[in-house]
Amino acid sequence: MIRTGSSMSNDEAWMRRAIELARKGAGRTRPNPHVGCVVVRDGAVIAEGWHRKAGDVHAEVDALRKTDDAQGATAYVNLEPCSHHGRTPPCVDALVNARVSRVVVAMIDPDPRVSGRGIEHLRAHGIEVEVGVLEEEARYLNRGYLKLQRTQTPWVLAKWAMTLDGRISSTTGHSAWVTGEESRGLVHELRDELDAILVGAGTVRLDDPQLTCRREGGRNPTRVILDSLLSLEPTRRVFDSNADVLVYASVNAPEQAEHLLKARGVKVVRVPRLAGGLDLQAILQDLGKRGIMSMLVEGGGAVHGSFFDAKLVDEVFAFVSPKIIGGELAPGPVGGLGIPRMDQSLKLSKVQSRTLGEDFLIQGLPVYEER
Amino acid sequence: MIRTGSSMSNDEAWMRRAIELARKGAGRTRPNPHVGCVVVRDGAVIAEGWHRKAGDVHAEVDALRKTDDAQGATAYVNLEPCSHHGRTPPCVDALVNARVSRVVVAMIDPDPRVSGRGIEHLRAHGIEVEVGVLEEEARYLNRGYLKLQRTQTPWVLAKWAMTLDGRISSTTGHSAWVTGEESRGLVHELRDELDAILVGAGTVRLDDPQLTCRREGGRNPTRVILDSLLSLEPTRRVFDSNADVLVYASVNAPEQAEHLLKARGVKVVRVPRLAGGLDLQAILQDLGKRGIMSMLVEGGGAVHGSFFDAKLVDEVFAFVSPKIIGGELAPGPVGGLGIPRMDQSLKLSKVQSRTLGEDFLIQGLPVYEER
Repeated sequence: MIRTGSSMSNDEAWMRRAIELARKGAGRTRPNPHVGCVVVRDGAVIAEGWHRKAGDVHAEVDALRKTDDAQGATAYVNLEPCSHHGRTPPCVDALVNARVSRVVVAMIDPDPRVSGRGIEHLRAHGIEVEVGVLEEEARYLNRGYLKLQRTQTPWVLAKWAMTLDGRISSTTGHSAWVTGEESRGLVHELRDELDAILVGAGTVRLDDPQLTCRREGGRNPTRVILDSLLSLEPTRRVFDSNADVLVYASVNAPEQAEHLLKARGVKVVRVPRLAGGLDLQAILQDLGKRGIMSMLVEGGGAVHGSFFDAKLVDEVFAFVSPKIIGGELAPGPVGGLGIPRMDQSLKLSKVQSRTLGEDFLIQGLPVYEER
Repeated sequence: MIRTGSSMSNDEAWMRRAIELARKGAGRTRPNPHVGCVVVRDGAVIAEGWHRKAGDVHAEVDALRKTDDAQGATAYVNLEPCSHHGRTPPCVDALVNARVSRVVVAMIDPDPRVSGRGIEHLRAHGIEVEVGVLEEEARYLNRGYLKLQRTQTPWVLAKWAMTLDGRISSTTGHSAWVTGEESRGLVHELRDELDAILVGAGTVRLDDPQLTCRREGGRNPTRVILDSLLSLEPTRRVFDSNADVLVYASVNAPEQAEHLLKARGVKVVRVPRLAGGLDLQAILQDLGKRGIMSMLVEGGGAVHGSFFDAKLVDEVFAFVSPKIIGGELAPGPVGGLGIPRMDQSLKLSKVQSRTLGEDFLIQGLPVYEER
């Protein structure tokens, strides 16, 4: 088969659609990856599918169920089809049985039970397999899954909203609202798509937030609260039953406070206390064990500071509003100890910016040189 | 004469060129406005000119000197031609004598000696005059001149460079360099084009800056230092002879310190001290008397804070570098008392953003509602 430039760019267009479908599962599939599948013949889609949640059918099967004739078609999948029996049978069998002639895959699945075996299996059955189309986009979509596979800890996205003079609240602690509606809409999109959301006790005390997703059709992330001494009243809105709650406390927090929280259905997990606060690495490991692949950290400056001090932030979303609040004592978005010299500051890679109404969003990935 | 859409857009194109020429005089014409002139006939430029510095010929005369036949041509000028005898004869006479048939003007000159009289004079001599082409751009170019005319004080542009977490230096005070070369290049462009540059004594003590313009062909702004108690050693680089220096001090700063500075050629001006520091309004009035039309305020946070607290900032240039420094004690760009509530924060209008290498520049004009 001769591949032309235009078939290549068609491949990208169909893969983009597969990634779009996969994204519908974001926040819903843990600890499974987000996968979408498009089946195309003669330049037209004959079936689409995606993985909705762990335990449900995989994307390939979801798509193939929607057609009774996929013979000779090309299937586009953003992740290598699985070759093992998990809760559902192997996807490669479904593709072979459907007699597709070509499978285009964005990236290999790092899961040691798959990791190339899916592709080998397809090729062994005479199916042409292409790997690497839109790989970067596919890796970004599943960055949580990939990090959990690699490190057994979730992807950490630190998000803040600040004024053009770098403040997240006024000197008096007033912060409603830094950014406009469109920025806040995107934050609820993040809450919808990430598995968990974390804040410190200070934020709960000050704002009494719900940390739920107010987006139509949205789903609430697991709420994670750092409260070293279990000082928060169990009547706080964050402890309601609208979503799971996990509270991390130090080993010497009072037993009684833990009982009160547990009576409200809140899970309390004790972790060691280090010089700078709770042991964040231990917390991430615990979250990883619970299958949390991705987490939004919505600061306070103290919480962001301790995550950055510990080099645990994987991604930054900084919303900047074109207004000035001023005040020597008005807090910035990242406290903690910080980095002593400007020329050693933490650089971001893959920096992107966009406007959201009147605000600007600047996002990027911290580059820890010693990693 | 029938005006078509395309002649309108040609008018804009030629006016844009006149503004470009006018800008060459920025930082050099005080207290005169920046003016450029393009003379066009049959769709081609026959002469160009601009006002180089106070006392030199005006833009119209500069242009008309370069052609011996401007009869029937159109002259584009970003500011109404003057009708009075200043240090040079009226420009309207030059245009009448050159027998141009049309003059296109971006805006009326608010100078009470002109203010419409120039246009009247041209029309009385049978010259067609069009007013208002690219008026907004023309007003922005001469914002310093316009503010000095209106308030007898200079236009104040506050500029800072901060990290994505809103810090202008690390916790230890280290600030070299927040932004990259391209951003710093634009700062030197601002230094070249604005009449003065102001910093606080703290910045001089910490960084020992020169506050000169390191741009090829650049010119140094007048250096303005706030040093309430005249505490800075006269050996600081900012007191060298590379550019004018003005130090503002409180009335009770030591006489002896003033003598030492004066011996170095530094002008010292005493102003009252208010609760928040030196009386900035008095300083701006003194600068206005000296013909300073525009001033760059290059912080520290304390200086920016007092300018914002006093509602004296007319324009903001915030450079944002995609890096994180962190640190609870790392200073932000605007200190002072600040505004107590986020919903009362100071909004910017005419917000623009651009990328400069890896950095972002967000600029805009504060809107003081009670003004």
